[in-house]
Amino acid sequence: MNYKLLGRILGKIMILEGALMLAPFLVSLIYREGARNVLAFLIPLVALAAVGALLQLPKPRRTALYQKEGFALVALVWIVMTLFGAIPFVINGDIPNYVDACFEMMSGFTTTGASIITDITLLSHSSLFWRSFSHWIGGMGILVFILIFIPEGDDGSSMHLLRAESPGPQVGKIASKMKVTARTLYLIYFGLTVLEVAILMLDKPVPGYESEKFFFSLLASFGCAGTGGFGFLPGSMELFSPFSQYVMATFLVLFGVNFALYYMILMGKIRDVLRSEELHGYLLIFLAGLGTIFLSLVGRFNAFPQTYTTEEAFRHAFFQTASIMTTTGFTTTDYDVWPTLAVTVLFLLMFFGAMAGSTAGGIKTSRLVIAVKGIYIRIRKLINPRYVPKTKIEGKTVSEQTVSDVFAFITFYVLILFTTTLLLSFDPICGTETVIVSDAGMHIEKHGFFSNLSASLACISNIGPAFEAVGPYASYAGYSVFSKIILSFTMLIGRLEILPVFVLFSPKTWMKK
Amino acid sequence: MNYKLLGRILGKIMILEGALMLAPFLVSLIYREGARNVLAFLIPLVALAAVGALLQLPKPRRTALYQKEGFALVALVWIVMTLFGAIPFVINGDIPNYVDACFEMMSGFTTTGASIITDITLLSHSSLFWRSFSHWIGGMGILVFILIFIPEGDDGSSMHLLRAESPGPQVGKIASKMKVTARTLYLIYFGLTVLEVAILMLDKPVPGYESEKFFFSLLASFGCAGTGGFGFLPGSMELFSPFSQYVMATFLVLFGVNFALYYMILMGKIRDVLRSEELHGYLLIFLAGLGTIFLSLVGRFNAFPQTYTTEEAFRHAFFQTASIMTTTGFTTTDYDVWPTLAVTVLFLLMFFGAMAGSTAGGIKTSRLVIAVKGIYIRIRKLINPRYVPKTKIEGKTVSEQTVSDVFAFITFYVLILFTTTLLLSFDPICGTETVIVSDAGMHIEKHGFFSNLSASLACISNIGPAFEAVGPYASYAGYSVFSKIILSFTMLIGRLEILPVFVLFSPKTWMKK
Repeated sequence: MNYKLLGRILGKIMILEGALMLAPFLVSLIYREGARNVLAFLIPLVALAAVGALLQLPKPRRTALYQKEGFALVALVWIVMTLFGAIPFVINGDIPNYVDACFEMMSGFTTTGASIITDITLLSHSSLFWRSFSHWIGGMGILVFILIFIPEGDDGSSMHLLRAESPGPQVGKIASKMKVTARTLYLIYFGLTVLEVAILMLDKPVPGYESEKFFFSLLASFGCAGTGGFGFLPGSMELFSPFSQYVMATFLVLFGVNFALYYMILMGKIRDVLRSEELHGYLLIFLAGLGTIFLSLVGRFNAFPQTYTTEEAFRHAFFQTASIMTTTGFTTTDYDVWPTLAVTVLFLLMFFGAMAGSTAGGIKTSRLVIAVKGIYIRIRKLINPRYVPKTKIEGKTVSEQTVSDVFAFITFYVLILFTTTLLLSFDPICGTETVIVSDAGMHIEKHGFFSNLSASLACISNIGPAFEAVGPYASYAGYSVFSKIILSFTMLIGRLEILPVFVLFSPKTWMKK
Repeated sequence: MNYKLLGRILGKIMILEGALMLAPFLVSLIYREGARNVLAFLIPLVALAAVGALLQLPKPRRTALYQKEGFALVALVWIVMTLFGAIPFVINGDIPNYVDACFEMMSGFTTTGASIITDITLLSHSSLFWRSFSHWIGGMGILVFILIFIPEGDDGSSMHLLRAESPGPQVGKIASKMKVTARTLYLIYFGLTVLEVAILMLDKPVPGYESEKFFFSLLASFGCAGTGGFGFLPGSMELFSPFSQYVMATFLVLFGVNFALYYMILMGKIRDVLRSEELHGYLLIFLAGLGTIFLSLVGRFNAFPQTYTTEEAFRHAFFQTASIMTTTGFTTTDYDVWPTLAVTVLFLLMFFGAMAGSTAGGIKTSRLVIAVKGIYIRIRKLINPRYVPKTKIEGKTVSEQTVSDVFAFITFYVLILFTTTLLLSFDPICGTETVIVSDAGMHIEKHGFFSNLSASLACISNIGPAFEAVGPYASYAGYSVFSKIILSFTMLIGRLEILPVFVLFSPKTWMKK
């Protein structure tokens, strides 16, 4: 283990986090929130800078990272950022319990959006800003992570698959060639965010919050860009105008697209983009989901007592399909009371997620496409043993090893999902009932198996809100400390595509050879 | 396609089904059920014999089956047996609707036990016999199927994995060497069934059913042997004495064991049996499930209002763990009202299933063991790329192809599970409420996502009863014709380990080359 180099990189990222904390610190000053709120950000900011600087002192002899070190580092970065990022909430008193605050920040940095806040109106501006900003930072972070793990010598178009078998990165290499690609990606990310803020600013402000127009536009855009989903108003995005809701939903779909495709558009390869199989799969699933939910909401298949107008049904179907498929978790209505068909479609979208190479979580469209092709080929082989097939995606042959890795990934994903569900079912909250008040009126939800299963899925897929007692108008506050820690790790496992977290916590990683 | 040979084998199996139908025909005569009930079995019996005989006429030139033909044949056998096996219920009026009757028989022959019967007390003796007998036949059938697909030259100990890549069987070969193994297996199957009947006969009869002691012992043993689970009394096995319930639970555990292990015991290889990793895994999961459910039922983790005595809690935990893990589906109590923890454990056991090479369904312990080892090795490889690991089970190296096949199997299993759930969610029954009366009193269950998900799982894993609106004291009667057909195929897909059904329905299978 190259501890010195690991420390050095970790230290740099801590200094970066400290620098990023200047933003909520400024927000706190602008809104004149008083000494306690200002100090809440100043103290961890100074601590991050100091520890980060100290970690720069030892000079590493080797400047390359082995693969396992890279994986462990990535998991460590998210954990350390969470542990420091949670401090402000404890100091300013918005989330007095440190475990709760860590849950909230892990949810922020993993762009999940699962929250333990029961009354969002009590939070300070700086707290609201820091929560949403953490989505934006986390989204950016995951783009770096993906970038680092692109196989060498590739043009970026293969970003569709996070290849765990790719060679470990060399710090020097990242610093040179990759920086160009990285800068372009950040520009796209930044540009899309600014564009969304600008368009949202065209709308009337949220009634009753006239002075917050820019602040809310910014936070909403942070959430969309990172596909995070922390709300900052009661009922998430319910109070926003239909125009704003349509704008957000559209940007959500855009942020669920593989960023390599935007890169290719900038390079003039528009024809390649239009031919992208993953894009086709993504749009197909999105439109099928949207259409089915819409038909379900107008009562086409199951009876649905709640009355939406046709426009409302379409808008909610559009917004929720986009929000859930991109694993964001913003809501415009209480989808928990929707008909079984719509609930089932949302559940499946939670599982699938959006495109690889985006800020979204979940299994990812590319894996789904490869899995379906891989299964089809296995059936074909049975029918004709002489059939020599090749799994292709985007016109390129995918190795049998990669197909096998995709199957292994999905299997592992399901096993972790079930393990988390099992661990949650030990929680004393199970069996209790929660009263939920939403735009659909009041309903009582029992905390049972489906609550836990959907909570586990909402965390591993980095969505946030789940169903029943942890539905869109409920929170994760009722879970025990043990469950919250489990769910925090589930979010991290999902965000980093499983393996890094296991590498970090494997004793074998840290054993001397 | 060797249609003549396919027809010939299919015909022989039809004649066999006709012969087996003599049993319920005799039951009908013994209980003097009247002409309609007697004819109900006589008519399809004659039809089966006639069609079966006709199919013997064309002489096939080739006497070997290709793999795809073998797969298609197996799926075809189950479907044809179901289509003919359902006729008696329509004639004697016990299940007037033919689709319902087919659902019931597919459930019987796949040893599932999902039922559309809402009042079991209305059925004739011959109908009850035929339902339970179909489990026993189906269990026997699946043992043949497994046997045929044992890789050539193997001693039977590798029966732990249904290897889809194994070479296609030659009819001649089955007829010679395999017949010996087959005969031994049937003897074990038959012997264990007779033993169970004998032990159950030691008990007092079920109160109120004094004259039915032998009849019920027989039906219960059919259900246990085939790990089927059709009830024949209100409340499934609830009315049986604790002694009988313990006996049945013990036999369930025995029938969930790989039959190759019994074969090995007979051959004196007891030490190999005791070292079997799959057996260890099976017993470990069973004991962990039993222990957790027991602790849950005595209120150790979640609050549980219902009052069981400690003995009752242990007995129900023992019986349900055995019944669900072996994918049988008999019940002694209403597990649907159990605490979330117990429900979660049962759900996971439904997914896992028992050992391969038994009459049970589900993923199977061996696949689970291989998947977990495969994932562990992938993590180890990341940590140390020079690590050259081999997945071993029972001391033998499992090829990377097999590991990959296991991952593919689990992925496909989950995708089919979700697809079935999605298709069920179009059913108009969704959103309706069902009043359920059980030993836990009365409770109302809404037919929602979890009802459909658990119904799909209970069918693909060949269990039968699910949760909520399709729980142990409910039935599948409320589903639409479309849903019942979907679920029938899901049972078949699960029973035949997925691939044969897809081979049968692939146009490529039937295209001329």
